Amino acid sequence: MIIVPEKEIGALLGRNESYEAIEQVFAAMAAGDAYNFPVVREAIGHADALYGFKGGFDRAGMTLGLKAGGYWPNNLETHGLINHQSTVFLFDPDTGRVKAIVGGNLLTALRTAAASSVSINHLARKDAKVIGMVGAGHQAKFQLRAALEQREFEKVIGWNLHPDMLPNIEEVASEAGLPFEAVELPGMVEADVIITITSSFAPTLMSDHVSDGTHVACMGTDTVGKQEVGVDLINRATVFTDEVAQSITLGECQHAVASGSKTETDIRQIGEVINGTHPGRQSDQEVTLFDGTGVGLQDLAVASAVVELAVEQGIAIEVDF
Amino acid sequence: MIIVPEKEIGALLGRNESYEAIEQVFAAMAAGDAYNFPVVREAIGHADALYGFKGGFDRAGMTLGLKAGGYWPNNLETHGLINHQSTVFLFDPDTGRVKAIVGGNLLTALRTAAASSVSINHLARKDAKVIGMVGAGHQAKFQLRAALEQREFEKVIGWNLHPDMLPNIEEVASEAGLPFEAVELPGMVEADVIITITSSFAPTLMSDHVSDGTHVACMGTDTVGKQEVGVDLINRATVFTDEVAQSITLGECQHAVASGSKTETDIRQIGEVINGTHPGRQSDQEVTLFDGTGVGLQDLAVASAVVELAVEQGIAIEVDF
Repeated sequence: MIIVPEKEIGALLGRNESYEAIEQVFAAMAAGDAYNFPVVREAIGHADALYGFKGGFDRAGMTLGLKAGGYWPNNLETHGLINHQSTVFLFDPDTGRVKAIVGGNLLTALRTAAASSVSINHLARKDAKVIGMVGAGHQAKFQLRAALEQREFEKVIGWNLHPDMLPNIEEVASEAGLPFEAVELPGMVEADVIITITSSFAPTLMSDHVSDGTHVACMGTDTVGKQEVGVDLINRATVFTDEVAQSITLGECQHAVASGSKTETDIRQIGEVINGTHPGRQSDQEVTLFDGTGVGLQDLAVASAVVELAVEQGIAIEVDF
Repeated sequence: MIIVPEKEIGALLGRNESYEAIEQVFAAMAAGDAYNFPVVREAIGHADALYGFKGGFDRAGMTLGLKAGGYWPNNLETHGLINHQSTVFLFDPDTGRVKAIVGGNLLTALRTAAASSVSINHLARKDAKVIGMVGAGHQAKFQLRAALEQREFEKVIGWNLHPDMLPNIEEVASEAGLPFEAVELPGMVEADVIITITSSFAPTLMSDHVSDGTHVACMGTDTVGKQEVGVDLINRATVFTDEVAQSITLGECQHAVASGSKTETDIRQIGEVINGTHPGRQSDQEVTLFDGTGVGLQDLAVASAVVELAVEQGIAIEVDF
């Protein structure tokens, strides 16, 4: 059994490796080679925690296992630990024996960032110049860093409910040598690519904040009741997602589907575009939208990449189990 | 993070510790202090494997986590490994951090044996002398060894579809200095306690094979469609189980409930008897029956006991995770 502790992940897994792992697993999902298991998510009635399991099997990548963990809202205050805590467990699909234990906290941030990057690479206009961030929390920095590698962006604009968080994304823009401008939501019309990464229960970004030809990646909605963008924007856009079943139930598309303006068959897997079985963007005027709900197979994919790198670099801890 | 490899479990966890852990968690379940999460069970379409997760949280014992693994039917032939493979993962309920990884194969056998033992201790007549085994496979040995500690048994009788397996249980009887007799199913009327531990899809033990006053522990049915005993026996008996929800859907009671002769409210949790909120057996003529379906909380309970013992005895492997 191989162990890769949380503290090793940062030095092991770069954005390129994350990108490749996520692109491959989205492709495998669309090809029918990989599927996610039903998600278990429980309010355990202790420490206000939400705990659960996201598992899956990728026959193409031969990765089997789960991410276990959840959200402990008092961790930081009470224990000095981050509130999201997770661990990935990989199993040998040939024997059912446990194969690796990998710290899952940074991996979750990296795989979520890689998902919007994959959508930008496959759906944004090639000449995209301005990227807009709706949300400026901790995860927004990961999303922006990964996104900036996908196009020759010349400017970052940003909005956040609490503007005092905006320096987070300004910092990432500066790292990349790009100017940053804080805008109001209508100012997002300047953007060619928009990433929403908020934890909101009411729509923020509406259709009239978005110009023709824009690609929007909605990365914040992963729960029934959450919503980042107006149903008018969903209705206007060609919509892609990681997993249709999640998109329509707990992802950004839940509201459009509930209102009857989108149906399950209107929403395509991003993997179809990767595999070339869907053409993706078809004009410079089209608005494309990616609903990134987050699936267990993403966690398994990046964990599997980490294990390979850790073994190669002699960092993996081996335990005779 | 603490690791207790499979090979250490045998020397660490005795039948007494298993018994105590299982009795406590059944009690916690009935008191509303512990609950099992929805079970994930998937035919993954590779190596004919069944894979999944059984999780739960016990607020009384402060154990949180899951058993992951399953059934790889070709393991023995192809890899020289046992076909059932599982691993238990324990988490800290206060922070969500992973706490321990414990080999789950022997634990599963021990916790299943402990469950029928708990039922015998709380439901069998005090003067029980003859124990009958229906089934004589590998797991039957665990069930019998644990059962023999609960009463002053004087004789073991046994039946198996393939009689060439009977030496398995004869061996356990000899260890305990007891005579063994192979019987046909009608010969089970001699038994005061009967354990069924088969993997059968049609009933074997019928009501007229069972005398008044007997306690029957049905330990083999854990899947939709399986059945060990006749519905006539279920209808005659006062029925207890580990978890009512499993008993009526995938346990031994599924058929009686489907036929309408038993309802959910007729089936009581064994924990109620442990806690004294149900009187248990009420006469020497009553037939009592325990439907042991197997729940994740049992795995967590024995794994947690193992971790404590491994730390005490300096056997636990500690990894900075």
